Amino acid sequence: MILSVCLNPARDVTYAVAELTVGASHPVAQVYARAGGKGVNVARVLHQMGEPVVVCGFCGGTTGEAIKADLDVAGLAVAFTAVSAPSRQTVTIGDGRQATVFREPGGPIGEREWQAFTARFIQLARSASVVVLSGSTPPGVRDDAYATLTAAARIAGARVVLDADGPHLRTALKHRPEVAKPNSDEVADLLGRPARGRSDAVAAGQLLLELGAGAAVVSRGRAGIIAVASQHAFEARLPEPVSGNPTGAGDALAAVIAAGLTHGHSWPRMLADAVALCGAAVAFPVAGGYAESVRGRLRPPAIVEEI
Amino acid sequence: MILSVCLNPARDVTYAVAELTVGASHPVAQVYARAGGKGVNVARVLHQMGEPVVVCGFCGGTTGEAIKADLDVAGLAVAFTAVSAPSRQTVTIGDGRQATVFREPGGPIGEREWQAFTARFIQLARSASVVVLSGSTPPGVRDDAYATLTAAARIAGARVVLDADGPHLRTALKHRPEVAKPNSDEVADLLGRPARGRSDAVAAGQLLLELGAGAAVVSRGRAGIIAVASQHAFEARLPEPVSGNPTGAGDALAAVIAAGLTHGHSWPRMLADAVALCGAAVAFPVAGGYAESVRGRLRPPAIVEEI
Repeated sequence: MILSVCLNPARDVTYAVAELTVGASHPVAQVYARAGGKGVNVARVLHQMGEPVVVCGFCGGTTGEAIKADLDVAGLAVAFTAVSAPSRQTVTIGDGRQATVFREPGGPIGEREWQAFTARFIQLARSASVVVLSGSTPPGVRDDAYATLTAAARIAGARVVLDADGPHLRTALKHRPEVAKPNSDEVADLLGRPARGRSDAVAAGQLLLELGAGAAVVSRGRAGIIAVASQHAFEARLPEPVSGNPTGAGDALAAVIAAGLTHGHSWPRMLADAVALCGAAVAFPVAGGYAESVRGRLRPPAIVEEI
Repeated sequence: MILSVCLNPARDVTYAVAELTVGASHPVAQVYARAGGKGVNVARVLHQMGEPVVVCGFCGGTTGEAIKADLDVAGLAVAFTAVSAPSRQTVTIGDGRQATVFREPGGPIGEREWQAFTARFIQLARSASVVVLSGSTPPGVRDDAYATLTAAARIAGARVVLDADGPHLRTALKHRPEVAKPNSDEVADLLGRPARGRSDAVAAGQLLLELGAGAAVVSRGRAGIIAVASQHAFEARLPEPVSGNPTGAGDALAAVIAAGLTHGHSWPRMLADAVALCGAAVAFPVAGGYAESVRGRLRPPAIVEEI
């Protein structure tokens, strides 16, 4: 199975209102609630792909209960560590023109709760082909958390797909994750400049390998994906970009890499799968899912070139 | 004991953000959550006054669990009827300048859930000196709900304090609540015109008696309170109005009337208590509580005059 780590899962609530006016009181016409967080989205996509997957992380309070209930309805296996702080909530207000978002920080996580989680993580990682580490961490979790988990996963015999940035990415790279998967915005900090074109993405990928990654996949939004492995570099893209909701496309990419590693797919195959699945995720209205028919339609024309 | 009915309790969440910008994503600096709804606020005030009180109504889902947990911490006795729809949430965004509020509707309540509630209500009302009916009703609850509950409470031997407006008020008056307690805005609909001055409030009180109320208390914000009983009419006010948060002052008034009825206080005493307690509620930062010291300071100078 694939283990998807979601240290800071969220109850994502969306309110439809007629018009958002600052300072006013608004009756909410429609309430939509769903469990979210990047690690949850990765797991939802893997589950939709038919891959056995388990989500782990921290979960607490009545928001945590709502998250677990929603994942149970979705048929996802969870192995959350119970914590005293309630899980965070995000509230998105949609008035038909734009979305206004409020993000609770989550946590704080105590030292004993972190230890309880890592003990459980090591046990789960022993049965995992791949561990995916993605998303923000709650207050109380240190900046080297992904470094600790990358090292522990490797000792347990699992490969690591790392979707992180900033200090989480830098510290974890030293422990040699199988694949690092930042997007072009997230590598700016490593490069010391914004990653504008294809050559910047390739340079960022090479830098990720120098810093410890086994391979690097840099997503460039509608421009496609750059993959840099030890012997090869590839570019993958769709002949025509898909329009829709790009939130969650990065989580779909992490999912397809984890599935590809599990099944031993070649880079060209994995990357063609990836651009088709990411396009199908953009065509899906919410993060953590993809449009099946779009995936099937996009897979044959997907372009992968060695560069 | 006093039975406070809260058909549509809420988990009231307040988010502190740096500045609310429509269309932006905001990290929430501070999260504050509290169980609310008018009937919950009435019960909190009665509990603070030392009056035995029980809250009943509908409660469901993980938001309902959060509401019950918060009331448990506050030491309030609850007798909620479990329903399948999650209890509503309200979200207030404060950016230090103004408050922007989003109110979920709550419900829907099914017919069987309503029947289960009324059976429990009748049982509870048998042990109650006074039943307070206040606040909005969730979808699925009919407009004559307060009429049904007023009739049932009277049969069970309890007096009714009714804090409602519109069709809820009109239909319930026929069943002779002991006291109807609208504010001056809420009687506009009965009067057929806005209730501007003292004479309009007295006229509204007289009309409430004609429509079936045993007595009427019309609150006029900083201008004080008008009470109209069968033989007398009174005006009560503070020498100087209190500034602060007026949300919840009406709930404090309903609470003090319920306590006064329970202890057989005279109208002058009850009204002097009322203006002092309402002033102390305005001085308290959130609805459902009052500043003890302010209450003590305001009680002696409170003015009650027969008119």
